[in-house]
Amino acid sequence: MVVPEIAKLGHIALVTPDLEKSLWFFCNVIGLEETEERDGTHYLRAWGDFEHHTLSLTAGDRARVDHIGWRTKRPEDVEAFAALLEKAGTAVQWIEAGVEAGQGRAIRFQLPSKHPFEIYYDVEKPKAPEGLKSALKNQTYKSWRKGVSPRRIDHVNLATNMDPGGIHAWLAENLGFKMREYIKIPNGPVVSGWMSVTPLVHDVAVMGDTTNSGPNRLHHLAYWLDNAQDLLRAADILSEEAIKFVGPGKHGISQAMYIYVKDPGSGHRVELFTNGYLIFEPDWEPIEWTPEEMELGLTFWGENAVAGNEDTTEA
Amino acid sequence: MVVPEIAKLGHIALVTPDLEKSLWFFCNVIGLEETEERDGTHYLRAWGDFEHHTLSLTAGDRARVDHIGWRTKRPEDVEAFAALLEKAGTAVQWIEAGVEAGQGRAIRFQLPSKHPFEIYYDVEKPKAPEGLKSALKNQTYKSWRKGVSPRRIDHVNLATNMDPGGIHAWLAENLGFKMREYIKIPNGPVVSGWMSVTPLVHDVAVMGDTTNSGPNRLHHLAYWLDNAQDLLRAADILSEEAIKFVGPGKHGISQAMYIYVKDPGSGHRVELFTNGYLIFEPDWEPIEWTPEEMELGLTFWGENAVAGNEDTTEA
Amino acid sequence: MVVPEIAKLGHIALVTPDLEKSLWFFCNVIGLEETEERDGTHYLRAWGDFEHHTLSLTAGDRARVDHIGWRTKRPEDVEAFAALLEKAGTAVQWIEAGVEAGQGRAIRFQLPSKHPFEIYYDVEKPKAPEGLKSALKNQTYKSWRKGVSPRRIDHVNLATNMDPGGIHAWLAENLGFKMREYIKIPNGPVVSGWMSVTPLVHDVAVMGDTTNSGPNRLHHLAYWLDNAQDLLRAADILSEEAIKFVGPGKHGISQAMYIYVKDPGSGHRVELFTNGYLIFEPDWEPIEWTPEEMELGLTFWGENAVAGNEDTTEA
Amino acid sequence: MVVPEIAKLGHIALVTPDLEKSLWFFCNVIGLEETEERDGTHYLRAWGDFEHHTLSLTAGDRARVDHIGWRTKRPEDVEAFAALLEKAGTAVQWIEAGVEAGQGRAIRFQLPSKHPFEIYYDVEKPKAPEGLKSALKNQTYKSWRKGVSPRRIDHVNLATNMDPGGIHAWLAENLGFKMREYIKIPNGPVVSGWMSVTPLVHDVAVMGDTTNSGPNRLHHLAYWLDNAQDLLRAADILSEEAIKFVGPGKHGISQAMYIYVKDPGSGHRVELFTNGYLIFEPDWEPIEWTPEEMELGLTFWGENAVAGNEDTTEA
Repeated sequence: MVVPEIAKLGHIALVTPDLEKSLWFFCNVIGLEETEERDGTHYLRAWGDFEHHTLSLTAGDRARVDHIGWRTKRPEDVEAFAALLEKAGTAVQWIEAGVEAGQGRAIRFQLPSKHPFEIYYDVEKPKAPEGLKSALKNQTYKSWRKGVSPRRIDHVNLATNMDPGGIHAWLAENLGFKMREYIKIPNGPVVSGWMSVTPLVHDVAVMGDTTNSGPNRLHHLAYWLDNAQDLLRAADILSEEAIKFVGPGKHGISQAMYIYVKDPGSGHRVELFTNGYLIFEPDWEPIEWTPEEMELGLTFWGENAVAGNEDTTEA
Repeated sequence: MVVPEIAKLGHIALVTPDLEKSLWFFCNVIGLEETEERDGTHYLRAWGDFEHHTLSLTAGDRARVDHIGWRTKRPEDVEAFAALLEKAGTAVQWIEAGVEAGQGRAIRFQLPSKHPFEIYYDVEKPKAPEGLKSALKNQTYKSWRKGVSPRRIDHVNLATNMDPGGIHAWLAENLGFKMREYIKIPNGPVVSGWMSVTPLVHDVAVMGDTTNSGPNRLHHLAYWLDNAQDLLRAADILSEEAIKFVGPGKHGISQAMYIYVKDPGSGHRVELFTNGYLIFEPDWEPIEWTPEEMELGLTFWGENAVAGNEDTTEA
Repeated sequence: MVVPEIAKLGHIALVTPDLEKSLWFFCNVIGLEETEERDGTHYLRAWGDFEHHTLSLTAGDRARVDHIGWRTKRPEDVEAFAALLEKAGTAVQWIEAGVEAGQGRAIRFQLPSKHPFEIYYDVEKPKAPEGLKSALKNQTYKSWRKGVSPRRIDHVNLATNMDPGGIHAWLAENLGFKMREYIKIPNGPVVSGWMSVTPLVHDVAVMGDTTNSGPNRLHHLAYWLDNAQDLLRAADILSEEAIKFVGPGKHGISQAMYIYVKDPGSGHRVELFTNGYLIFEPDWEPIEWTPEEMELGLTFWGENAVAGNEDTTEA
Repeated sequence: MVVPEIAKLGHIALVTPDLEKSLWFFCNVIGLEETEERDGTHYLRAWGDFEHHTLSLTAGDRARVDHIGWRTKRPEDVEAFAALLEKAGTAVQWIEAGVEAGQGRAIRFQLPSKHPFEIYYDVEKPKAPEGLKSALKNQTYKSWRKGVSPRRIDHVNLATNMDPGGIHAWLAENLGFKMREYIKIPNGPVVSGWMSVTPLVHDVAVMGDTTNSGPNRLHHLAYWLDNAQDLLRAADILSEEAIKFVGPGKHGISQAMYIYVKDPGSGHRVELFTNGYLIFEPDWEPIEWTPEEMELGLTFWGENAVAGNEDTTEA
């Protein structure tokens, strides 16, 4: 049997207790486009995203992540992942095609930390409607239509009050994520790890956070902007709307710039993310940061990246 | 008699206890050019400055500001200012031409807060030496030669433990500075004021700071960069040299972006400054900020601008 | 009698044969805000402009500039200018308060080249309506609401098929504009001059252009953006709307970056303008560029700034 | 046998008739760092490159590309590529470890167009010397030390007077490159193709150019900058050194911004490259551009990207 592979982060399905405010935040302030609304779920994406959606919003009684969707490299990888996961003792639930708009048959399962993941291959890539369509054949929507206007989804960052090292190992063994950078107590455990299947430094990070009340928390999801200055423009836009945020600053780990802002409708945290480096080396040695180096690793400069870390939402 | 007028901020003469380190900081890290060294004083300017110098560094036993130099609009304004100041009870000292390199006859005097000011008109505007000269006829040096590479001097910010309102009034009455923005306790005193003779929001600010041990402190001097992103590049450069700084952030007052960094040789604080607005209106109503609005006024977003305010140097 | 002085460029009143398209261009693509519409004239300004309007659009049978408005330093300057101009043989027409929305009594007259100027002092500075108002007390509208989103009006550039040197002299003698930079044929005439009353390198330029069919042409009006990258964002926005433009590039003269784009409703050319230098020196020696140096002066780098120069509109 | 895979572009080995001037250009103007000089060859890399070198310069009687080096995913891929290439009729030459500084055993061969390729796996990743080393553990050198200061090598673009479609097919069949975007005559041949093995839109492009005098020309090699504004800073730096270039502009194809500049020592063209998009989709449909759309594809805006195309160097 072929070894199945994850190709990329696909989307994050969020539940919000204030759908109207969350839609205002994601569509008007962040500037995502809505592909469609079906059965109360709003399917959104950035102007440079190709898939049907990279974020969905559904009303619920409390903020939580319904699932985090990953696309495979080949159609047959979904079944192969299902078989391998079940063999390894992970319960797998099949989701029929069309249950999630624009998406084919998929599986859902939980990490040992109970973070809910989804794996799929078939997905629609609808064109933008006339009038919103880019003049460029390789770009979905016109850029800069509204709000912050990020290009595409980038990564997801999970927090847990469990030992994160076990989750990193699980992600490596079961889903093929490679460790890229990590923070480790000398002679002690890894406390945070940044992992990817792509040349991005991380498609997913898992951070140990003992202040979390549960094992399955969302630290943030991230959208990518092309330029550092786009982040400064985002800071203006957020400030004009009186939405507080953390940043701008630059991480040492990933070398990327950040702003962290919470959806006022749900409390889910979004990172606006730019710059950073890519890993093309096939023999990449994961970068180890000690707790002494961690401050530099998390905040190379700018407003402290860990401000407001305590209140993550449930994933 | 003609009413004399200040045209612009000219330069700041700094004394440093570690000349070598201060020269490294201002010439290699900030990237100023040295016009000449004479009698132990190093005369520096930015690539877009036209005058002989906008900063001078002299060794001394402790960090202090020797004087802050202002250029007049007309040659005869120097004598006129001398007469008016003496008439108003301010002691005036004449400095002969050439005592300060590149500069003609000047006067020196103290504000009521003992901040030392200088007024001059005649000044050399030496061309850059071949090899360093810009390809542009309206620009002194090539830009981007080294370090942060600001374009020009911008403003000076003074701190005092006296009532700053009296200093603002003195600057308006004696030197013609106009109030542009200020922070005021309701039914109470003005605690900070930003003043200018040019369309810049401030050529000089005077801030009340009861944590200061004296009436005459330098809060910072500022150099201008053309673009917000140049400030982010500066943050990289400073961080690579392990020099701590405050920022980047954006002031509400002046709408400008900032980084505050101290010369490691002297502790004198430098603001790297960009963006913001210009005031061309002849009937500008000074903007009043209340203490409640002050936080927004000082830090619209980014790392808190007042961090590290306590330890200003003597002016 | 006091010598009257111009404080600043106020506004440009444009006539357009396609008002609807011009409004779409200036309000949706460039992103100006509309203060009010009165008697068929739409009064517009940028988010950082303080006066009632910096641009007005009125329908007419052909594109032309109705007038270019300049604000004086003092209320009494308007009468003083009227007297001086009439004494010098220039016909002056008085415009009563309120004829132009938001504006007090004003005079109108023509340059020797027939370019129509207006001088006023009294002007309203209306606040932005709630919802559009900036969170900052010193800023009129929220920034980044729509389109290119420039901060403020910057300058106006006039073309003439007359000898421009005479116009420069007239502007200096009658209105106090100082020459800042100019292009001159060796042992021959000045062909273009950049002049200002403010520290901007130019509030007005007059360029000789023998391809013009008349003496009174508008080369362009300019709006200011804060950052070079805002110009690149503008390039994306214009390209997505399939509006052709010249640039981006950088002038040697003024050291500013540019994009030139024509209002598709009228053909009036707009410059999107950023960076550059300020002149605070009271004894500024105008920079002379020879025809050999002119190429560098007009286009330091980027797409040639003189592309599409031929078809200027009437002023 | 495992199917061998290319992981990434490694380096380009250039021969220059004026080594001193080429070194000045690449090290002082572009700002590459020199890892070492051995046997007359200078091995260079950017501050964010990890491998021993991404460019080498060797003196020769005329400008030419000695080889273009590609790194494999696994050590055994080098032998596997050798076997497959020979089986397919391509002559393969083995290069012993150490012949090229910092590199293990490699193979060299020619495309049907005679462009010289190299494939290797073993390569040293030397740390930067103290003093030049970044404060960040995941970055080789301090950034912004000198010149344009790009982050890393990006791609290579080949020109040929042969039918490029045959070369595209050869690269796909023999080396696994996937077509990402291409220009095609309707009912006619593909004239240019952008191909990659990574999520970059292209690691290599092959463009048909009938103005070329030979089948094996180098159109350009590209270095990556993090921000669009870094490209504008590069334009200033190049202009100050009186080095002509094409751009800045933005491609439609790849959505990336460019400046094209020729090494004055050799004539080899370098692209300074930023922004653009990444392809994570496993089922990417190559984007087809017709000749009518080609203008937009090559130059979405800015100075025409095809200016100066005629005189490519030999590869």
